[in-house]
Amino acid sequence: MSEKRLAAFDIGGTSIKMAFLTTEGDIIRKWSIPTDRSEAGVKIVQDIARSFYKELEADGLTTVDVLAAGVGAPGPADPEQGTISGAVNIGWPNGYPLKKLLEEAIELPVFIENDANCAALGEMWRGAGSGTGDVVCVTLGTGVGGGVVSRGMIITGVNGSAGEIGHITVVPENGFLCNCGKKGCLETVASATGIVNLYKAEGKEAPDARTVFEFAAAGDEAAKRVIDRCAFYLGLAIGNIANTVNPAKVVVGGGVSEAGEALLLPLEQYVKQFTFPRAMDVLSIEKAQLGNDAGVIGAAYLAKVMTV
Amino acid sequence: MSEKRLAAFDIGGTSIKMAFLTTEGDIIRKWSIPTDRSEAGVKIVQDIARSFYKELEADGLTTVDVLAAGVGAPGPADPEQGTISGAVNIGWPNGYPLKKLLEEAIELPVFIENDANCAALGEMWRGAGSGTGDVVCVTLGTGVGGGVVSRGMIITGVNGSAGEIGHITVVPENGFLCNCGKKGCLETVASATGIVNLYKAEGKEAPDARTVFEFAAAGDEAAKRVIDRCAFYLGLAIGNIANTVNPAKVVVGGGVSEAGEALLLPLEQYVKQFTFPRAMDVLSIEKAQLGNDAGVIGAAYLAKVMTV
Repeated sequence: MSEKRLAAFDIGGTSIKMAFLTTEGDIIRKWSIPTDRSEAGVKIVQDIARSFYKELEADGLTTVDVLAAGVGAPGPADPEQGTISGAVNIGWPNGYPLKKLLEEAIELPVFIENDANCAALGEMWRGAGSGTGDVVCVTLGTGVGGGVVSRGMIITGVNGSAGEIGHITVVPENGFLCNCGKKGCLETVASATGIVNLYKAEGKEAPDARTVFEFAAAGDEAAKRVIDRCAFYLGLAIGNIANTVNPAKVVVGGGVSEAGEALLLPLEQYVKQFTFPRAMDVLSIEKAQLGNDAGVIGAAYLAKVMTV
Repeated sequence: MSEKRLAAFDIGGTSIKMAFLTTEGDIIRKWSIPTDRSEAGVKIVQDIARSFYKELEADGLTTVDVLAAGVGAPGPADPEQGTISGAVNIGWPNGYPLKKLLEEAIELPVFIENDANCAALGEMWRGAGSGTGDVVCVTLGTGVGGGVVSRGMIITGVNGSAGEIGHITVVPENGFLCNCGKKGCLETVASATGIVNLYKAEGKEAPDARTVFEFAAAGDEAAKRVIDRCAFYLGLAIGNIANTVNPAKVVVGGGVSEAGEALLLPLEQYVKQFTFPRAMDVLSIEKAQLGNDAGVIGAAYLAKVMTV
C-alpha cells in the first residue's frame, strides 16, 4: 500500500476545482465540476462528494487511502467553527457549516479556509514563496485578494477577515467608493477595475486594464501615470504589510500581474520607499507561479498540517 | 514545595526592570537596577545575573525554584537565534547573543523578544487585551512602538521587524523625515515628538505634546486640528493593521495616550472609517492597563509558553 493521498477542493462561483495530491504537494490528478448555485447552493456538498467518490473509485481506491481533505471557499472562514460566511457568489447563508456537512458526506477529516488564503498557502508551499514560512500573497484580479502566512500557517484573524489586503486603505481622502462600503481601498485602484477607474479619472476611457497597459507601452502619458499610480498604491500597501508582519516574500499574482515588468519594476521601487529598512533587508517581491492550481495545493497543505 | 515561579527582565536604556511572577502572571516581587551602558553594555548580563541571584536568595530560593526567564530588549530580536540587533541605546553590537550569555549566567532557559513585543504579550495576557489571543498594541511615547499578537503568540517576522507600527507609512507624499530614513512614518506624526512637529507645521510652537493637548482643550484651533490629524493618521494605521491581521482588540498605551478621550474618541471614528466592515465588527480599541509592568508580564508569559 502506497502513502496516503490528500484531497483538495477549491470552490468558486462558476466551477469547483478538485484534485488528489501527494503529501509532498504534487498533483496526482485534477479535474473540475460546475458550481450548482441553485437553491442557495445546497447541492454543492453532495456534488463534491459524488465526484470525489467517483474519481477515487476510478483509481481503485477508497477513503481509507485518503488522509484528509482541504477546502478553499470564497468567503471569510472560521476554521475552528468550520463555517463560511459571506459566500454571496454561491448563495450560502452566513455561517454555513461547510466542514461538518462535507465531513458527513465524504467520511474524512475536512479543513476549510478562505480561497485567497488557500492560494497563499499554496504559493508558500510549492510556488513562488517556497523556502520560507513567511509569505504574503496579493492577487490582482477583478478585485484584490490576499493572504498572510506567518511561520507556515495562515493568519485567519478573529472572524476570518485577516489578509483582506484589497481593503487596505491607500487613498485615505477622496478615494473611490469600494464595494465593501469604505472608500479608498486598494481594490479601487489596483484591481483590473481599479486601473480602468484611474484611467477614467484622467478623463480617458479604456475597456479593460490590459488596454491601459497597452496604451502605456505605446507612450500614452495618462496611461503611464495610471500604471505608476497603481504601483505606488500597491507598494504602499505591501510596504505597510511588511512593516506589520515582516515577511520574506510578497507574491503577486492574478490577471493584472501578467503585465509583468511594466508593473513590477515600479512596484519594487515603491515597496522599498515604504518599507522599514530592516524589514526591506529580507524582503523580495515575486511573481506567483502556480496560477489556478494555487488554491488546491494550499488546501492540500492545510489538510496535511492540520492532520499531523 | 510551592509552584515554580517565572523570572522576567525588561532591559531599557536607563534601567532594567526585574520581577518574579507566578505562572498565572501575578507579580510576586519587582525591582530595578540601572543599565550600565559602559563598554558597549558588556556588563549588563552579569549585572542582571548578580541581582537575580541576590533577590532569589533573599526569598530563600535557588534556580531550581524558577521555571525559566523571559527577557525584553530594545531592538529587533531573533528568538530562534537568541540574538538582539539594533540595540543602539545600550551599545550592543548587532546580533548580540543575549539568550546564550544569559543562559550561561543564570543557568536557566531564557527566551528573548523585542521589548515592545513583550509589552504587547503582557497586555494580551493580563491587561487590556485579556480574554483574546488576537491583540495589537500601539505605544505612543517619544516614538511609536508596537506588537502584533496572533493566537496568543507574538508575530516576530523573518528578522524581528514585525510590529514596527511606528514605521507604517501614513503620509505617503511630503511626509516628515523619520529617524529610520523613510518619510511619513506614523512615528513622525503620532508620537509626542510628532505632535509637536504637526503643531510646528501649523506655524505655531509648543514645548511638548501635553501642551498641545492643553491648548486644544482651551480652544486653540491649530492645536485642535493637530489632535484630529494625529487621530486620523493613527486610525489609518490601526485600520490597515486590522485589515491585515483582524485582531479582537487594539490596545493603545504610552504617554500620549494619557490624553484620554481627547485622542481616543476621534481615534475610534477614524479606525471605523478605515477598517473593513467585517473586521470592525469584532474590533475594540482599549486603553493599556499595565503601564510599565507590561514588559515584565509579557516577558514572563513568553518564558511560560516557550517552556511548556
